[in-house]
Amino acid sequence: MRKVARAMECINILSVDDLTTQQIMCLMELADFFREKVSQKANCQLLPNNIMVTLFMEPSTRTRCSFEAAMLRLGGKVISITDSSMSSASKGETEEDSVKVLSSYADVVVMRHSEKGVMDRVKEHVKVPLINAGDGCGEHPSQALLDLYTISTYFSVLGADAHERVFTICFVGDLKNGRTAHSLAKLLSRFNVVMRYVAPAQLQMPTEIQREVEMNFAKYNIPDLPLSRQTSFSRLEDACEGADVIYVTRLQKERMDKQGVKDLLGSYGIQKSLLSKLMKHVKIMHPLPRVDELPTEIDSDERAIYFEQAQNGLYVRMAMLYLILNGGK
Amino acid sequence: MRKVARAMECINILSVDDLTTQQIMCLMELADFFREKVSQKANCQLLPNNIMVTLFMEPSTRTRCSFEAAMLRLGGKVISITDSSMSSASKGETEEDSVKVLSSYADVVVMRHSEKGVMDRVKEHVKVPLINAGDGCGEHPSQALLDLYTISTYFSVLGADAHERVFTICFVGDLKNGRTAHSLAKLLSRFNVVMRYVAPAQLQMPTEIQREVEMNFAKYNIPDLPLSRQTSFSRLEDACEGADVIYVTRLQKERMDKQGVKDLLGSYGIQKSLLSKLMKHVKIMHPLPRVDELPTEIDSDERAIYFEQAQNGLYVRMAMLYLILNGGK
Amino acid sequence: MRKVARAMECINILSVDDLTTQQIMCLMELADFFREKVSQKANCQLLPNNIMVTLFMEPSTRTRCSFEAAMLRLGGKVISITDSSMSSASKGETEEDSVKVLSSYADVVVMRHSEKGVMDRVKEHVKVPLINAGDGCGEHPSQALLDLYTISTYFSVLGADAHERVFTICFVGDLKNGRTAHSLAKLLSRFNVVMRYVAPAQLQMPTEIQREVEMNFAKYNIPDLPLSRQTSFSRLEDACEGADVIYVTRLQKERMDKQGVKDLLGSYGIQKSLLSKLMKHVKIMHPLPRVDELPTEIDSDERAIYFEQAQNGLYVRMAMLYLILNGGK
Repeated sequence: MRKVARAMECINILSVDDLTTQQIMCLMELADFFREKVSQKANCQLLPNNIMVTLFMEPSTRTRCSFEAAMLRLGGKVISITDSSMSSASKGETEEDSVKVLSSYADVVVMRHSEKGVMDRVKEHVKVPLINAGDGCGEHPSQALLDLYTISTYFSVLGADAHERVFTICFVGDLKNGRTAHSLAKLLSRFNVVMRYVAPAQLQMPTEIQREVEMNFAKYNIPDLPLSRQTSFSRLEDACEGADVIYVTRLQKERMDKQGVKDLLGSYGIQKSLLSKLMKHVKIMHPLPRVDELPTEIDSDERAIYFEQAQNGLYVRMAMLYLILNGGK
Repeated sequence: MRKVARAMECINILSVDDLTTQQIMCLMELADFFREKVSQKANCQLLPNNIMVTLFMEPSTRTRCSFEAAMLRLGGKVISITDSSMSSASKGETEEDSVKVLSSYADVVVMRHSEKGVMDRVKEHVKVPLINAGDGCGEHPSQALLDLYTISTYFSVLGADAHERVFTICFVGDLKNGRTAHSLAKLLSRFNVVMRYVAPAQLQMPTEIQREVEMNFAKYNIPDLPLSRQTSFSRLEDACEGADVIYVTRLQKERMDKQGVKDLLGSYGIQKSLLSKLMKHVKIMHPLPRVDELPTEIDSDERAIYFEQAQNGLYVRMAMLYLILNGGK
Repeated sequence: MRKVARAMECINILSVDDLTTQQIMCLMELADFFREKVSQKANCQLLPNNIMVTLFMEPSTRTRCSFEAAMLRLGGKVISITDSSMSSASKGETEEDSVKVLSSYADVVVMRHSEKGVMDRVKEHVKVPLINAGDGCGEHPSQALLDLYTISTYFSVLGADAHERVFTICFVGDLKNGRTAHSLAKLLSRFNVVMRYVAPAQLQMPTEIQREVEMNFAKYNIPDLPLSRQTSFSRLEDACEGADVIYVTRLQKERMDKQGVKDLLGSYGIQKSLLSKLMKHVKIMHPLPRVDELPTEIDSDERAIYFEQAQNGLYVRMAMLYLILNGGK
């Protein structure tokens, strides 16, 4: 691990593509380590002299708190800047200037912004590592990593024996605008995975992402299968047979009417009745927050693992911060 | 104390009723201990591996800061979520989901909300101890505990000799909507106390609370007196004779007109002129913030102890956090 | 340093005038010490049992974060209160009351407010040291101190040989309303400095400040020069010959039209073309945020030191907090 850690020195994590597969494996191992430590309430104050600035120009309480808890559990310090207090913007200052100054007080910056691609614009002004915590409909790498980690605790997608069995995931929802689905699809395309995209035509996984996924499969030497590794569906009931994970994303009401939701989720939706048709080993995931697409009545089903998934965010973010900040030591 | 502490393991403090009298006594002793330590600027970093989430869906700077200072003085860490940054709510997420996820990052959650009874709704979704920091016109147990602590530093309501002398408190103001008065009345009804409620008829102490107080007196074997232990008054000057504490609460202007205020506070109000008629041992308390009901000209009188009362909040909240988080160890 | 430190015990820093020249020299030395420590990523957790409350009733992310980073780097704790969460104000509480209660939880209070002179009103209610982080168009002492520190890293204005060479600074911009220019002019008038004020007539350095500067020169025995130590200019090109530092401040558009800006900055403005006419040793400073008055194309010029200046804020604020909080020990 020491060797891998060295390789992380001073890198940014703006996209899942910024990480080598070796680094990803290292993050997964570290997340396991931290999950163990935290569950034992053990001391893991490994970063006592480090300050993280969370710069959330678009609000996201869940992600911000998860990063802050991760840093605090590692003994580090946090300076929290949320949308409403980002005052210099109102004085006409550019984001580049703001980030340049704020990052000069910190050892790592975690940034969220409503504009896709903003990270590329500011990264050269940040002298410390920068983590993208979501940029508009762009990427959300820490979410994809915690999703992968959660999958890996149930399915051997990463292990030495992963080539023996294909892992099948159904992405469901607004795949056009959902950055978590984009990041996760790109991340999973390094492994022996089949992806099914379940969305109304106008909200399907962008062809740009599908092309990147395709290129990744080739780049990482994932062998061809008799059928394509990527298929689009418009109804969930057609897609979930043989799936291992149903990855549901938030249906954004402003983009889809009631009929659209009904059409997408089919004649039964993700109700108890769907669960009764799913295999016992299938897992239901969701990046949260959910609204209507997952009824609370299924929360107690052991296949519903979205709250466990959210909690894993803590361990994965601890792993990210530890690797980035301790990499050179 | 060790035995009592064990009994606190994993409990919530949603109401003063959640605590046994033994636990309350233990909290008072601990508050004394922490007051001593803090005034000596001594190290009391007893909870270094603990994270508190303060989830204030209704703003309350004073209470939030008091809890945060308490946690920081104990060496713990804080993640602060205020109303404006509670963003998932705007995406339509339920409070149960928000609290469930956020609490999975923390060791204790302190929650404030404008809706009475919300704690009962969310408590089953929180896997760590939950403290109610005020729920609408419901309860505010930490305020009642710090009030009791403040009283106990001047009057022997808790000690072994407390049965020898009746302690008399006048609650003044909007007793219908004032949750601090509700919580304190319920808390005091375990002890040898006489309560006088001074308010216009339409803002009197709710009969529901009066009934609970009555039942508590019986439950905790507080002996009857020749006169009732609870009496309602509409004018302060009729109520304060023989009182030990005048507990003034904020007069909410939106609920009471100028004439109403004048009627309530009588021909003199809580002015210097009232103080001259009060015994030397009487104390004026107020949960703060105050507006017009207490003029600043009385601040320097040694019977005005509301700022001392506010400061005691720090020690009592340190005691609450310590007992809850260290209970099992 | 120990002796100087003792002299700081329990003082407020509301204006640069609150500090003796000996204390200022001590702050500069400490800032040097902390710059070294932080750049080495060395442990400087000298204030582990201390809590700072940052009470920003007017938003200023940069200044707040700089103070918070300073406190955290020193191992202290922070409670952050920003404008939007200062809720008691909405309940009608006075600032005196708010500050009195909040300061009772803290070891030091850093306060920002839009009203000039507010600090004098609240200071008697704060039992712990109070630092003014900007009060309307009043003062901003930590900014002036970091400006002085930045100057001292390039020019010997403070050293034993400072009398041998006059240091010349041009203040440029809205000098009427710019509190940073006021505080810095007052601070520099203890030393062998010539000041040039470059602004349109209606935005010139107030005569009140010019008089204070004049009195300081006398008070601190700064010898007269053949020409006045203070001169006003309306065009930058007339003022910058022989200057050591061009101190540009934000041009507040609501107060100056485009033509006014053009007139002020002359036929070339602070463009690359100006830089080509300036001596090699000249430094361009700016308290930030900047808007249009400094184009980004000059950022890479080594005479542009405004980002370095912002970073120095961290070390100077560490020095301020350390001296104030450790003074008596």
